[in-house]
Amino acid sequence: MTTPVTRQECAARDAADPLAPFRDEFVLPEGVVYLDGNSLGALPRATPARVAQVVEREWGQRLIASWNEAGWWDKPRTLGALLAPLVGAGADEVVVGDGTSANLFKTLVAALRLNPGRRVVVAEAGNFPTDRYIAQGVVELFDGASVRPVDVDDTAALTAALEPGDAAVLLLSHVDYRTGVLRDMAAVTELAHAHGALVVWDLCHSVGALPVELSRAGADFAVGCTYKYLNAGPGAPAFTYAARRHHAHARQPLSGWHGHARPFDFTEEYEPAAGVSRFLSGSQPLIAAAALEASLELWRRVDLGQVRAKSLALTDLFLELTAEAGLECATPVEHARRGSQVSLRHPDGYPMVQALIARGVVGDFRAPDILRFGFAPLYLRYVDVYDAATALVEVVASGEWRDPRFARRAQVT
Amino acid sequence: MTTPVTRQECAARDAADPLAPFRDEFVLPEGVVYLDGNSLGALPRATPARVAQVVEREWGQRLIASWNEAGWWDKPRTLGALLAPLVGAGADEVVVGDGTSANLFKTLVAALRLNPGRRVVVAEAGNFPTDRYIAQGVVELFDGASVRPVDVDDTAALTAALEPGDAAVLLLSHVDYRTGVLRDMAAVTELAHAHGALVVWDLCHSVGALPVELSRAGADFAVGCTYKYLNAGPGAPAFTYAARRHHAHARQPLSGWHGHARPFDFTEEYEPAAGVSRFLSGSQPLIAAAALEASLELWRRVDLGQVRAKSLALTDLFLELTAEAGLECATPVEHARRGSQVSLRHPDGYPMVQALIARGVVGDFRAPDILRFGFAPLYLRYVDVYDAATALVEVVASGEWRDPRFARRAQVT
Repeated sequence: MTTPVTRQECAARDAADPLAPFRDEFVLPEGVVYLDGNSLGALPRATPARVAQVVEREWGQRLIASWNEAGWWDKPRTLGALLAPLVGAGADEVVVGDGTSANLFKTLVAALRLNPGRRVVVAEAGNFPTDRYIAQGVVELFDGASVRPVDVDDTAALTAALEPGDAAVLLLSHVDYRTGVLRDMAAVTELAHAHGALVVWDLCHSVGALPVELSRAGADFAVGCTYKYLNAGPGAPAFTYAARRHHAHARQPLSGWHGHARPFDFTEEYEPAAGVSRFLSGSQPLIAAAALEASLELWRRVDLGQVRAKSLALTDLFLELTAEAGLECATPVEHARRGSQVSLRHPDGYPMVQALIARGVVGDFRAPDILRFGFAPLYLRYVDVYDAATALVEVVASGEWRDPRFARRAQVT
Repeated sequence: MTTPVTRQECAARDAADPLAPFRDEFVLPEGVVYLDGNSLGALPRATPARVAQVVEREWGQRLIASWNEAGWWDKPRTLGALLAPLVGAGADEVVVGDGTSANLFKTLVAALRLNPGRRVVVAEAGNFPTDRYIAQGVVELFDGASVRPVDVDDTAALTAALEPGDAAVLLLSHVDYRTGVLRDMAAVTELAHAHGALVVWDLCHSVGALPVELSRAGADFAVGCTYKYLNAGPGAPAFTYAARRHHAHARQPLSGWHGHARPFDFTEEYEPAAGVSRFLSGSQPLIAAAALEASLELWRRVDLGQVRAKSLALTDLFLELTAEAGLECATPVEHARRGSQVSLRHPDGYPMVQALIARGVVGDFRAPDILRFGFAPLYLRYVDVYDAATALVEVVASGEWRDPRFARRAQVT
C-alpha cells in the first residue's frame, strides 16, 4: 500500500509546474475549484480589453472602415491560421466561423459529395447529440442515404460497419464528451481510409486539451468549438478544418458570399473560393471573434506537450485521490486512451454534483449517471485537484448529497 | 421655382424632431456624417457596458451557471421576442441566431419541403449575392430543383415566373440593397400565394428602417441581419421568422440540438421543437448577443412610425439638395416604393464616394455605378443631411474626385 499524496506534496508540484504562470492570466472566481473548463473555459484576463477595443474603437469610432483597417473581412482566415497549430494543421487549412453544428453539416455534406455512390454515414453511436442530429439532417437530403451508428471504441464493430464498402464518411469525436475516452486519430483514420470512407473528426473535447495532429493522422475534415479548453467565451465561433488535398473538390451547401472566389465581384453564379475559405458562408460575429483572438494569442505561448503532461498528471492525481469514494470510473486508466477529464458513475450522480458545487467544486452531470470533471491545465493547480478530490470523497461518505436541495431538476448544460 | 432649403431651416427641423433625443444614445465619431448605417449601424452608448457585463460578470465570475442564471440558453427566444414587434410578428415567431446566409438556407429548404412536388425557387434576380448563392446551394440538394431569377419589380414578369405552378417558394428582399426600392410585402405575398408559392423575405435592409408587417402581409418566412439599422455590431446574430401556421410542419436541415424538442434528454433521434425553436441549431455567440440585447432595449422605446416619417423626410431632403449635382437617381421618388436610402448613379461613383469620405461624409459604393447613402433616423439630423448633400454637390462640381488618391482599388464591403 502506497502512502496517499498530501496537500503539501501537491503544492510542491505546483511550485515546479512550468505552466503555473498561466493561472494568473485567467479570471477565476473566489473560492471555486472549476472543473468544468471542458464545458465553458475560464475568462482570460486579456479578453475584456480586447473585446472593448473592438466594440469601442473598431466599431464605435471607425465603423465600416474596420472591415479593411481592422482586418474584419479576413478574420475567419487569420484566426484559423492562429488556431491551426493547436490542431496540427496548416495555416491554410482552418477557418473560424459559424457553430459546430453548422460546420458538421457543411463537412458531412462535402464528404458525401466527395464519395459519390456511397450513401452511408457511419456515426459514433454515443456521440454528443448535435453530431447525431446533424448527421440525421444531412442524410435526409441524399436519396437512399442513412446513418449507421457504431461503437467506435470497438474496433471489430467499427470494421464491420465500414466493411460493406458503402460508407462515405465516418463521423466521430476525438474525445468522448461523457467518458473522456480518447480515440487514436491516426489508427481510426487509416481504418476508415482503408475501407474507402472519409473521416470528419469532432475536436470539441480535445482541442486545447492535448496535442491534436490532424495532418499527421491524414484526417480529411474536422470541426470544433473554441469555448471549452480554448477559453473564447460562451458560444464562441467554431472552426472547420479541411485537408489541403480536398480544397479543390469539396463542395459545401451553405454557399454564402464569404465563401465565394471573388466575393466583391457580385457575380451571378456561386463559385467556391480556391482554398478552405470555401467553407465560409456569411459575416461572422466580430465582437465574439475578438474574445477568440485574445485567447488564441495566449495559446500561442503554450506548449501543448506540457499541457498534455500536466493534464495526465492532474487526472491521475484525481483518480488516485477519489478511489476511496468507491465510484465506478468511466474514464480509461491508460494514458493513451484518456482525454483531459475524469468521469465517475453513480445513480445519484446528480445530487452528488450539486452537493459538490455547494462546496465550491464545479463539475457537471451527464445523464444517466455520470459525474464529469474536466481538467484545464492552464489554470488548475495540483492543490485544486487535491481539494476537489477531498471534497468529493467527503460528499459521498457524508451522504450530504441526500439533502433535498440537491434533488434533480430540469437541467440546462 | 422654389427657394432652396437653408441649413437654418434644417436646424429648426432638428429642434422639432421627436426622435432627436435618440442621437445622444449613440457614439458617433467626431467630424463625420455617417450615411452608412445601412451597412453597419452606429454603436449605442449602452452597448459597451452590457457587453462588459456578459464578459466579466456572466462569463468571468459565474461561468457555466450563467446558462441558467443569465438566461443564456433561452437567449435566441428572448431576443427573438424583443425583436418581433420590429417586424410585425408574434413573440413566438422569431428566433435570433446564426447568420443571414444560414437562415436563408434553413428557411428555403423548409419552404421546399412544405411544397412537395414543386421544385422551383423563384428568386429576385438582382438580390444581394448571398441570397442568390444560397438559393443555388439549396437547389443542388433537391433532385430536379432549380432557381428561376426574376425582376421582382416587374409585376408581369413576376406573375409569369409564378404562373407555371412549379414554384415552391419566392425569395426576395423587402428593400433592394442597391437601389433602395421598397417592395409591397402584402401584394407580393398575395401574388405568390395565389400561385401556390411560399415566400421568404429578406429584411436586412428594412428592419429598423421602417415598420415591417410580416403577420399582416401573411408572410411565410423571413430572415434578416441586426447589424445595419438595428445597431447590434459587426456580424451580429441574424434572425429567423416563421409564421405560426408553419411551426408544426416546417423541417429545416441544420437539425442541431438547440432545435430539439427535449434537448437535455439527449435522445437518439432528432425531434424538432414544437415552435419556432426548431429553426435553431447550435450554441450562439453570447458576447455578440449581449450587444444585440443592448440595442433591442433601445429599440423598444422607438416609434417606428416616427422612424418612417423621418426617414422619408431625410431622403426627400437629400434628393432635393443633391438634384443640382445632376446624378441619375436609382431610388424611387414615390414614398411607397422607397426604403431608407438614396442611391445615385455615375460611372465615376467610386472615386466620388472616396472624395466624400475624405470630407467626412461616409457613404459607400456598389458596383457598377451606385453611390449609396443610408439614412438612420435615430442618429442622423437634418443638418447632417444638409452638410452631406452640400459636400456631394461640391465634390461633383469641383472635380476633386479626380485626384488619383481616390482611384478605384480592391474593395471590401
